[in-house]
Amino acid sequence: MRTPPGVPAADFAAAIREFQAIVGTDWVYTAAADVELYRDAYSPFPGEAAEISVSAALAPDSLEQVQQILRAANARRIPIYPISTGRNLGYGGSAPVLSGSVVLDLKRMNRILEVNQRNASVLVEPGVTYFDLYRHIQEHGQRLWIDVPDPGWGSLIGNALEHGAGYTVAPMRDHFDGHCGMEVVLANGEIVRTGMGALPGSKTWQQFKYGVGPVVDGLFSQSNFGVVTKMGFWLYPEPQAHRAARVTVPRHDDIYPFIDILAYLMNSGIANSTIQVRSPLIETADKDASIAQLLAQRGGPSAPQWDRLATEHGLGSWAASFNFYGPSKVIDAQWEYVQERFAAIAGARFEDGVAHVFPLTREQVSQVENKAGLGIPSLSIFAFGARSQDNPTPTHGHLWFSPIVPMSGESLLEARRVFFDAFREWGVMPLGTGLPYSFHPRSFLFLFGFQITEDVATNRLHRETFQRMIQLAAEHGWGEYRTHPAFMGPVTDAYSFNNHALKRLHESLKDAVDPNGILSAGRYGIWPRHLRRSKT
Amino acid sequence: MRTPPGVPAADFAAAIREFQAIVGTDWVYTAAADVELYRDAYSPFPGEAAEISVSAALAPDSLEQVQQILRAANARRIPIYPISTGRNLGYGGSAPVLSGSVVLDLKRMNRILEVNQRNASVLVEPGVTYFDLYRHIQEHGQRLWIDVPDPGWGSLIGNALEHGAGYTVAPMRDHFDGHCGMEVVLANGEIVRTGMGALPGSKTWQQFKYGVGPVVDGLFSQSNFGVVTKMGFWLYPEPQAHRAARVTVPRHDDIYPFIDILAYLMNSGIANSTIQVRSPLIETADKDASIAQLLAQRGGPSAPQWDRLATEHGLGSWAASFNFYGPSKVIDAQWEYVQERFAAIAGARFEDGVAHVFPLTREQVSQVENKAGLGIPSLSIFAFGARSQDNPTPTHGHLWFSPIVPMSGESLLEARRVFFDAFREWGVMPLGTGLPYSFHPRSFLFLFGFQITEDVATNRLHRETFQRMIQLAAEHGWGEYRTHPAFMGPVTDAYSFNNHALKRLHESLKDAVDPNGILSAGRYGIWPRHLRRSKT
Repeated sequence: MRTPPGVPAADFAAAIREFQAIVGTDWVYTAAADVELYRDAYSPFPGEAAEISVSAALAPDSLEQVQQILRAANARRIPIYPISTGRNLGYGGSAPVLSGSVVLDLKRMNRILEVNQRNASVLVEPGVTYFDLYRHIQEHGQRLWIDVPDPGWGSLIGNALEHGAGYTVAPMRDHFDGHCGMEVVLANGEIVRTGMGALPGSKTWQQFKYGVGPVVDGLFSQSNFGVVTKMGFWLYPEPQAHRAARVTVPRHDDIYPFIDILAYLMNSGIANSTIQVRSPLIETADKDASIAQLLAQRGGPSAPQWDRLATEHGLGSWAASFNFYGPSKVIDAQWEYVQERFAAIAGARFEDGVAHVFPLTREQVSQVENKAGLGIPSLSIFAFGARSQDNPTPTHGHLWFSPIVPMSGESLLEARRVFFDAFREWGVMPLGTGLPYSFHPRSFLFLFGFQITEDVATNRLHRETFQRMIQLAAEHGWGEYRTHPAFMGPVTDAYSFNNHALKRLHESLKDAVDPNGILSAGRYGIWPRHLRRSKT
Repeated sequence: MRTPPGVPAADFAAAIREFQAIVGTDWVYTAAADVELYRDAYSPFPGEAAEISVSAALAPDSLEQVQQILRAANARRIPIYPISTGRNLGYGGSAPVLSGSVVLDLKRMNRILEVNQRNASVLVEPGVTYFDLYRHIQEHGQRLWIDVPDPGWGSLIGNALEHGAGYTVAPMRDHFDGHCGMEVVLANGEIVRTGMGALPGSKTWQQFKYGVGPVVDGLFSQSNFGVVTKMGFWLYPEPQAHRAARVTVPRHDDIYPFIDILAYLMNSGIANSTIQVRSPLIETADKDASIAQLLAQRGGPSAPQWDRLATEHGLGSWAASFNFYGPSKVIDAQWEYVQERFAAIAGARFEDGVAHVFPLTREQVSQVENKAGLGIPSLSIFAFGARSQDNPTPTHGHLWFSPIVPMSGESLLEARRVFFDAFREWGVMPLGTGLPYSFHPRSFLFLFGFQITEDVATNRLHRETFQRMIQLAAEHGWGEYRTHPAFMGPVTDAYSFNNHALKRLHESLKDAVDPNGILSAGRYGIWPRHLRRSKT
């Protein structure tokens, strides 16, 4: 049995016996074959010494067991790494930051504690997945929508705590923003309820976010300050209808007014769902050498070159897909208004996409192509990088590089130019469109997937490239919103204003709430005091 | 010169000299006539020994001066109480919680640092008032709306940190929710920037809320963990049009479907602005003895009695005023859909209210009645309780009692019954409609104004009643969202889950970020360690 770093074998054996007494021997995993399952399936270190391992895993079934585990771990200084379901693929999965940590797997705590139809909210435990909640809602005939991220097998709590997002409407599509109330077990085993949950018998734990006094909820996201054991979420009452639509503009320089209008529409709440910027020209590059050549030009293509090629191919330059949700007459009016605004760009084209009226039958649901767009969990995203006719070499996983960039045409072009020039210089081409999403309101998110392969040298190159990308982005004022454990140090180090004042504040807070540093050492760059010097 | 509690006179005199060296003698106030201005204008203790006083006030002009002041105060353990503009009337104004504290008045730090027209955001200092920003935007011809609270003379930062709210659209109408990025000076003088502000040269400080890692912003609201010196806010791009509308339903028991529909519309984003529940019947009580008598009945009126009286008087039972903002065709469709939904209630009546198309001329602006509803700051709220023909005895101020109640007809009626039965029993009738608002999404807020008078006995009765109201509300699972310093202890004590676990967490965090406890001792029930035992 592997032991966690710094823990004597005898102490660890004693701790394991205590854990077994708490959760039962069946739910303490120490066998190599069992703990191997907690390996990051998309690890960037396959077959290398730096691969992160797990010494043991525990699967408690109740809040009380979590408390007891943390008390026992605290007494013996055992590093604990809580996961909800561990499906955070591309950002670390179920593996800890500190190799040898004990994974606290909350999958068995999967109770849906309340679904409030009238106020459209839910209270869940960490093991509740999007699939679980969706099925529950369907079975109970509740007319409520969840906002789901691309893969539906993860947990609501895990995804929200990582600042994940989906596709339907704000605020619910920003999963942390859509939460309301938490229950957290601190490292010392104390249970804290946030917001209105701190009022015994509260009637509005899932209805009013702040409670009274300082708001601590944010501390428990992307961090290691406590184990979230319950969390409330706002749901979206099933709308009357949905319609998808697409706007395309012809010329390269249309990007400037195009994004300005898009931002106006989003900031005004007229286009209230997640938008992906597209480019028919760019998306044709893999089928057309002349376009590929144009795009491969250092410094990016010039506008006249681009426009010439777009005209020749009869392709639009830029596009955006909109999804409207609500009463039919309202979304029709929204789409009409969107067209009016974009009509200011000469040659703008408008296409109606799919339309739905709710509720859908089971058969209709099965035929929906963009399931996440209707709050229906699925695993279809895993087709991404899978083996196909067009892609004979399936991916073995990837690391997401995820910088936030301003929502403007200038920034979009600048980010593409800077990133792609670097990719070409470094001889690496990541997965992804290289076109941004607006998952969160008012900003763009680029997503580049650096592939994991079976070749150690390639993986090393991709990791080095990832590191350089962090620097490159930071030099331009762009920071990552989320990252893989292997890069949490450098990503958070880039947030260095005033000699890392924010990180030092995080460390002070960490020391206050987890003085022995047992929880998720190293998560988002926050190390416990006894490991801090060696890691920075 | 008064000295702060626990500070030797010589130390305080030395501190004052240091403060004078930092900000200049003109900006250190110690004369009685000057510090008297920081008294809470609506103090519940006028003329009593418990009246809160101020030993001195400092008005720095820059971030560096704030840092120097905090370092000096830390060295000498001087209690400091930062205010933005101190206009928090009804919730404490400019007076500290700990009598004798030195007020850090940030009114001179009133720079509007950036107005971003394209991304509809602003970065301001604490002294910037709603009036200041409104004038700036008008002068620069920017087509952006601020969301303003009732009195426009307060500051954006102060109001948001107190979880204040306004009337236009979500998320901006919830002022803390509408913020994006902070700069904070900690008690030790260190400057921290939150969110993307921690990335040097960040391009998205006012566009993406979270940054990376734990989100600390909430810690600096309703608290005493730092001095906020800059804060970003999202603005609402000027909409094409506005229309007000009103829905009235006839019968007492219509309240159940009425609120359910209202909640559906709000939770769906179809009615996205602040809604006040009205009652034509209740609002006629002061002109009609039979209605007053009905309402005065212990346990509240019965539905048949209520309906008989409503029919006799030709009055509706319940009403709600809606405000729609956006493209004309969209808001027309929203209003049509709202009518469709409420038409499910037999006898529902619909009235069109005022309508506007923007921009307005100066003359049109001056004629707007509901200025806050159009994001225009004003002071018209102070007509409330002023001397008039109907009200020969103007108020001397009031304390707001502000409980959060679930958004349902049952809860609305229950809260009215519980509160008014208590008022009658205790012989006190507070100001306000006794009908809730939905300032924050998904919950109701009741606002009861307990008057301050020239009579000590009456003020004492009102304070005692306020204390009893806190208990009574808590017994029903309703907590206050904000409160006056005189009641911060009992209000936060009611949030007592697990032996005050949340308060104890707040205290641990406080000790970590302000170990000498110099900042705003007692604010929202959080006392520094050296004063903790005596206060709890």
